[in-house]
Amino acid sequence: MEIKVVRKVLDVNNTIAEQNRKLFANKKVFVLNVMSSPGSGKTTTLGKTISRLMPDVRTAVIVGDVSTTNDADRLAKTGAPVVQVNTDAFGGDCHLAAHVIAKAAESFTLEDVDLLIVENVGNLVCPAEFDIGEDAKVVVLSVTEGEDKPLKYPLMFRVCDAAILNKIDLLPYLEYDKDEAVRNIVQIHPDIPVFEISARTEDGMESWVAWLKEKVKEKLKP
Amino acid sequence: MEIKVVRKVLDVNNTIAEQNRKLFANKKVFVLNVMSSPGSGKTTTLGKTISRLMPDVRTAVIVGDVSTTNDADRLAKTGAPVVQVNTDAFGGDCHLAAHVIAKAAESFTLEDVDLLIVENVGNLVCPAEFDIGEDAKVVVLSVTEGEDKPLKYPLMFRVCDAAILNKIDLLPYLEYDKDEAVRNIVQIHPDIPVFEISARTEDGMESWVAWLKEKVKEKLKP
Repeated sequence: MEIKVVRKVLDVNNTIAEQNRKLFANKKVFVLNVMSSPGSGKTTTLGKTISRLMPDVRTAVIVGDVSTTNDADRLAKTGAPVVQVNTDAFGGDCHLAAHVIAKAAESFTLEDVDLLIVENVGNLVCPAEFDIGEDAKVVVLSVTEGEDKPLKYPLMFRVCDAAILNKIDLLPYLEYDKDEAVRNIVQIHPDIPVFEISARTEDGMESWVAWLKEKVKEKLKP
Repeated sequence: MEIKVVRKVLDVNNTIAEQNRKLFANKKVFVLNVMSSPGSGKTTTLGKTISRLMPDVRTAVIVGDVSTTNDADRLAKTGAPVVQVNTDAFGGDCHLAAHVIAKAAESFTLEDVDLLIVENVGNLVCPAEFDIGEDAKVVVLSVTEGEDKPLKYPLMFRVCDAAILNKIDLLPYLEYDKDEAVRNIVQIHPDIPVFEISARTEDGMESWVAWLKEKVKEKLKP
């Protein structure tokens, strides 16, 4: 019963996601859906990423949280236009749905945007199930979270086009087998690119940003 | 529309949770619902906790994950009876619902159990909404997750009876204001006990385990 209801919600979501996808294609906007656990360092990673992209790649951001505008405030410092969505306004949703993205995107002049980054609600389960009309999905996993998260949350790693392994500056202080973590990611999703970075020290940021720039270029080129 | 549907699911859940609560009261079992982000160190914390409780407090565990039996395998080493629930068997649910707990509890001889610990699915949003018939809820937050999580996920911190701030052994290597984190927890939930621990080094475990023992004793005393 519960599963049937969820299925109906997902069907409605998929229809709106397709409308979003057409709109973004029409406006030549590349949309990136960024997902992770709470506290994996999404916002720091995106702040450093956007600083390296702008003004070359004109970037806008939609930030999802249950509550607060903390992340939007932090990302606005990059100079990119930012919209915060607080899901506690509609029941405390644990993910961003396609209709929320459609509404939030109205805040931007899409003709002036090359890349729209969506920072999803911190959650490794539900956001993986909701298509928002994006071109690519990325998961951020931090090395403080344990090696087995890809096996425990397989859908998230299966649907994503790239994985970022963050906080590698903390490796000397942890009992963490990074190679095992990467093996677990690749076991769930063979050939997925895995970028090992520290958003704090900016170690490893170049190859991640180069990958993203290439993706945006592919969509924008005539 | 979506919110109405969710409300109905929650009503059904509450009814079953009350049945669970009566059953556990009748069998004199104290039920603890432990929630957190993925990778906060719930399983390590519980392993160390159970080792300090057994055999004095007869403990059983229900472990929830979307996939894998990793955590149940780890906790079984304590000697406590453990049941793993994998929610991918029923749609990949992001939380444990009351009917799942009712079914899993059938695996135990409840007359021989003083404390039933439920390790919920790693998620700071949805599990907070689902009563499972527990006596107390506890949230585990690790110091690698950022100070503002209580403000961003307020419901979780509002409904919990205690908070554990884990991984304090990593504080020297982080830019983390522990006092701010505690202030944020108390801002959402005044007077909540906050236990600062490192499950790895066992620093701070005594006062947390003493609190839990006292709670169990209160319920069991005639």
